[in-house]
Amino acid sequence: MIGKVFLVGAGPGDPELLTRKAARILAAADVVLHDSLVSREVLALAGANAQRVDVGKRCGAKLLTQDELNSLLVDYAQKHAVVVRLKGGDPLIFGRAAEEIAALRHAGVPFEIVPGITAALSAAAAAQLSLTDRRMASQLLITTFSHGQQGGSLDWSTVTSTTTLAIYMPGSDYAEVAARLLDAGLAADTPCAVVSHATGADQQVRWTSIHNLFEEEKLPTPALLIVGRVAAQHDAKISEHVSVQVYSAGADPLATALGWRKN
Amino acid sequence: MIGKVFLVGAGPGDPELLTRKAARILAAADVVLHDSLVSREVLALAGANAQRVDVGKRCGAKLLTQDELNSLLVDYAQKHAVVVRLKGGDPLIFGRAAEEIAALRHAGVPFEIVPGITAALSAAAAAQLSLTDRRMASQLLITTFSHGQQGGSLDWSTVTSTTTLAIYMPGSDYAEVAARLLDAGLAADTPCAVVSHATGADQQVRWTSIHNLFEEEKLPTPALLIVGRVAAQHDAKISEHVSVQVYSAGADPLATALGWRKN
Repeated sequence: MIGKVFLVGAGPGDPELLTRKAARILAAADVVLHDSLVSREVLALAGANAQRVDVGKRCGAKLLTQDELNSLLVDYAQKHAVVVRLKGGDPLIFGRAAEEIAALRHAGVPFEIVPGITAALSAAAAAQLSLTDRRMASQLLITTFSHGQQGGSLDWSTVTSTTTLAIYMPGSDYAEVAARLLDAGLAADTPCAVVSHATGADQQVRWTSIHNLFEEEKLPTPALLIVGRVAAQHDAKISEHVSVQVYSAGADPLATALGWRKN
Repeated sequence: MIGKVFLVGAGPGDPELLTRKAARILAAADVVLHDSLVSREVLALAGANAQRVDVGKRCGAKLLTQDELNSLLVDYAQKHAVVVRLKGGDPLIFGRAAEEIAALRHAGVPFEIVPGITAALSAAAAAQLSLTDRRMASQLLITTFSHGQQGGSLDWSTVTSTTTLAIYMPGSDYAEVAARLLDAGLAADTPCAVVSHATGADQQVRWTSIHNLFEEEKLPTPALLIVGRVAAQHDAKISEHVSVQVYSAGADPLATALGWRKN
């Protein structure tokens, strides 16, 4: 037999934030190969008889190399009808899906990709900020950071003041990230928000700036760093610029709005 | 009374690609204020008694100004318990949610943001390509394009060869987009994929390049343009670089993989 492999995005951890399609496929899975970061609550959506295989890191050591994992996917598809490769967030953003896709193509295994809520979106939802607020941002750069990585390879020297950065996996050395951001030419007072465990019961948002990031207390991982004007803590400031008309109670709001516009 | 407003991402159009939370909130909605682009199938997830209000464009003309829409949201929350503001894709990416959030804060209306699958993710899933394939890309720039917009305001002059661009709403004048990409210094042979109606029954993917984009046939909107090395049509090329071990049939794949690694 030859089964089908579903590369499925598990989203940020809250099982309510999987897509309906992802939940349906998980419930039908014979085997679930998952990253270690995928939450227990999400894994519980798979059927009781589904085989669950943690292919991620254990105690800091990789359980499997990427080549071994690629081979494993192909092999399971030769034994089972529905094989789910479950990745945190979205499979096509920093998920190494490309190598798995290439291996599946090479082996002639049918596959399908089911998108998921990537960390930038769940972090922004948790912090209640628009990543592309048109009053202060024109675009979003989804990027990442590795300890010891040099400025040149970061491609951040090119970031303009109306670009929001979403930095995945900023690590625990915020000072190093802050230094690289300054190297890249960003202003020290650029607002930042560190979002830890976005959309989870224990989510935390720390409003700070590149300058203050040097001394910032670390938040638990997984965390995401949002950098840019949209990350200014906003309540008062932004509300000033927004006009709100209040309609008379009792009237139909839409009719009132349209009538009001005509007058 | 004061109700609650949910800013909900409707995803790309396929009702299976809403999150479970979005579907649950839609089913409980008293009122759904939706963009015109939100699909009929997604709107059908709201209860039969829910009031549906199209607040988007009609025949090219805005039905409501943003200020009117902000006021409408606040007003509905004063009359109904569950008010859903339903936006295509994710509410915090090019959705003008910031102004609605500010209005809700200003008026003291409780609100919550429910993320959705943004177009870059659904387009990549449709095209089966990793946006951040580590062999050729380090980051993703989510950006947009307006007809007549000048090069300087696009912030693309800064894009490096290992940055993937996801250009939302590229419009129908692909030649103009291609010209701006060349102005920004990208090589004419940079691969591109135009993805139309991603994840829909009528989805189309056109593999092209910046050079060929000048003459490319238009695909139906909504469409998204992916630019960068990850958008090369890949099958053969990439597969060559991937090693696949095939395990002996019958053995447990995981045990074999681990055993194989130890040897």
